[in-house]
Amino acid sequence: LSFDLVEAWIRDNPKASICTPEGAYNFKNIANFQDYHGLPVFRNAVARFMEKVRGNRVRFDPDKIVMSGGATGAQETLAFCLADPGDALLVPTPYYPGNDRDITWRTGIQLLPVVCESSNEFKLTHEALESAYKKAQDSNIKVKGLLLNNPSNPLGIVLDKQTLTDSLNFTNDKNIHLICDEIYSATVFSQPSFTSIAEIVQENENYNRDLIHIVYSLSKDLGFPGFRVGIIYSYNQTVMNCARKMSSFGLVSTQTQHLIATMLSDSDFVDRFIDESAKRLGKRHGVLSRGLAQVGIGSLKSNAGLYCWMDLRRLLKEPTFEAELDLWRVILNEVKLNVSPGASFHCS
Amino acid sequence: LSFDLVEAWIRDNPKASICTPEGAYNFKNIANFQDYHGLPVFRNAVARFMEKVRGNRVRFDPDKIVMSGGATGAQETLAFCLADPGDALLVPTPYYPGNDRDITWRTGIQLLPVVCESSNEFKLTHEALESAYKKAQDSNIKVKGLLLNNPSNPLGIVLDKQTLTDSLNFTNDKNIHLICDEIYSATVFSQPSFTSIAEIVQENENYNRDLIHIVYSLSKDLGFPGFRVGIIYSYNQTVMNCARKMSSFGLVSTQTQHLIATMLSDSDFVDRFIDESAKRLGKRHGVLSRGLAQVGIGSLKSNAGLYCWMDLRRLLKEPTFEAELDLWRVILNEVKLNVSPGASFHCS
Repeated sequence: LSFDLVEAWIRDNPKASICTPEGAYNFKNIANFQDYHGLPVFRNAVARFMEKVRGNRVRFDPDKIVMSGGATGAQETLAFCLADPGDALLVPTPYYPGNDRDITWRTGIQLLPVVCESSNEFKLTHEALESAYKKAQDSNIKVKGLLLNNPSNPLGIVLDKQTLTDSLNFTNDKNIHLICDEIYSATVFSQPSFTSIAEIVQENENYNRDLIHIVYSLSKDLGFPGFRVGIIYSYNQTVMNCARKMSSFGLVSTQTQHLIATMLSDSDFVDRFIDESAKRLGKRHGVLSRGLAQVGIGSLKSNAGLYCWMDLRRLLKEPTFEAELDLWRVILNEVKLNVSPGASFHCS
Repeated sequence: LSFDLVEAWIRDNPKASICTPEGAYNFKNIANFQDYHGLPVFRNAVARFMEKVRGNRVRFDPDKIVMSGGATGAQETLAFCLADPGDALLVPTPYYPGNDRDITWRTGIQLLPVVCESSNEFKLTHEALESAYKKAQDSNIKVKGLLLNNPSNPLGIVLDKQTLTDSLNFTNDKNIHLICDEIYSATVFSQPSFTSIAEIVQENENYNRDLIHIVYSLSKDLGFPGFRVGIIYSYNQTVMNCARKMSSFGLVSTQTQHLIATMLSDSDFVDRFIDESAKRLGKRHGVLSRGLAQVGIGSLKSNAGLYCWMDLRRLLKEPTFEAELDLWRVILNEVKLNVSPGASFHCS
């Protein structure tokens, strides 16, 4: 969306690359470096960037930054750290279908849906959480944690402070982990603004911090999915140490660490990029949602992320997942648009 | 070792980087790209490079190249693909201690040593293989494969063709997998030259190719451990498909793929680099082993890799692992040299 800004910055900052005449003297040191902690300048720059996209309302400790192969790797690594085969994580619906593969495939853990309903705009309620937890207990499944995605993929909305606090109270009371996936945190384009779980944690010392973990990535907020920059930020020293050892399977290329470190250390550029990116995202989302409204298609009022949650129920032949799939095929094959059906997000 | 050649090449090839004025027009496409197959030019260049370091005696199909987060990730991915928790892989001793972590930690599989002896220069014999296999059977452990490291870390020697053929006959007869870790294949600095398992496979159509897999990396042969370029080359389509899906946890940064693709496509540069690197490696190894000989320390006659296997037995107080550790502490703390004791490589 805002690659023109990045490209201009790159032309202006030849030292950011170890492959320019200005930066090549660094090539040997960088290509040779493979400490699991990552380049100190990289961790530091990422921590400052994470603070910035959270309105500088929280502090992040660079020493708690653990690298991973994208958010994909971060999710799996945390799952390996927090749960044993057969254990479960709760996940509110609708949720990103990739979780089913990333988190469960090799770890042997399972995801249990916390059913949220379109009737109240998918609000995550205490009842829904308790009900999912009880259902697991009744089936003798050990629940090890709750996974939140904020801003939400696919809904494109932020979780409000009250919902975050309720969720944290719930996990703290049950003595289970809370994983907050905040990979869309810099994509908020209108009110309400984004609240990180880090803010709730910082404001209240009564929570057991050992149970709180954040997943981050630069794939969405900067638009660099190819660079595979994933981050685990854990308040739990043991989890952090373990995750860092596991990061050997998905370290970020030092060439990329070096570039990102230099780019994100340029505070003026970062400010400009975040502002401009939000503006452009809001503009495009407005065009899309207004266009849909003009042809009578409603969509969830959203304020973040790259998604638009459309209500196509009136185009269904009947209110079933089969009919939804039939409609999806028509849209894909005739309209040539690849939208994702609600069923793929575990909607009920 | 030969970074001066790389740095000179980089200065001469600004288009290889998406962060130079000459290459930045590619930034958007590259940073955005995240297909698990990798950039086609990258796979193609790596396949050609793998052929070159094997003396162009074999062909590699770029479509069988699967990316991974270094050889570390490649080993684990293959282990996930080939074995279930509790299953085992045989590994000739002495072997790289990192295998214990990389291959077993999260997969739940185990490594069983095939005992090779210093008395016959650690030759891998049919008897040793059969004995390890039988021992596993007697303990009701399912052996799923044999892992070879060629050239050897830590011995710094290549496996001869007969040993490779015998090993392949063994695994083929038992219907178990053969994984050949060839990450040091371009480090051969004197005779005999390197024989890849790919040559044996290519010469004989009677082997079940579905049981044969190669691990590769650019961390040693080019000296870029920070870039995390690992490769799985499998002759088994199902394993390849599965490994490619798992590669989502450790993809190579597209920025690095792009650089490597351009660099390895320059055939003159690659020829020069391989030649010069081998020369310098041989020279340094000669200095080290002659120096050791002058003070009466023998070492295994080696011809590849970055290692020197010293015989310090006459400095031991007694022939035990405890005495070895005592000597190691003296060398570390007083001589300030971090050599690795034989016990860490599972010597018997």
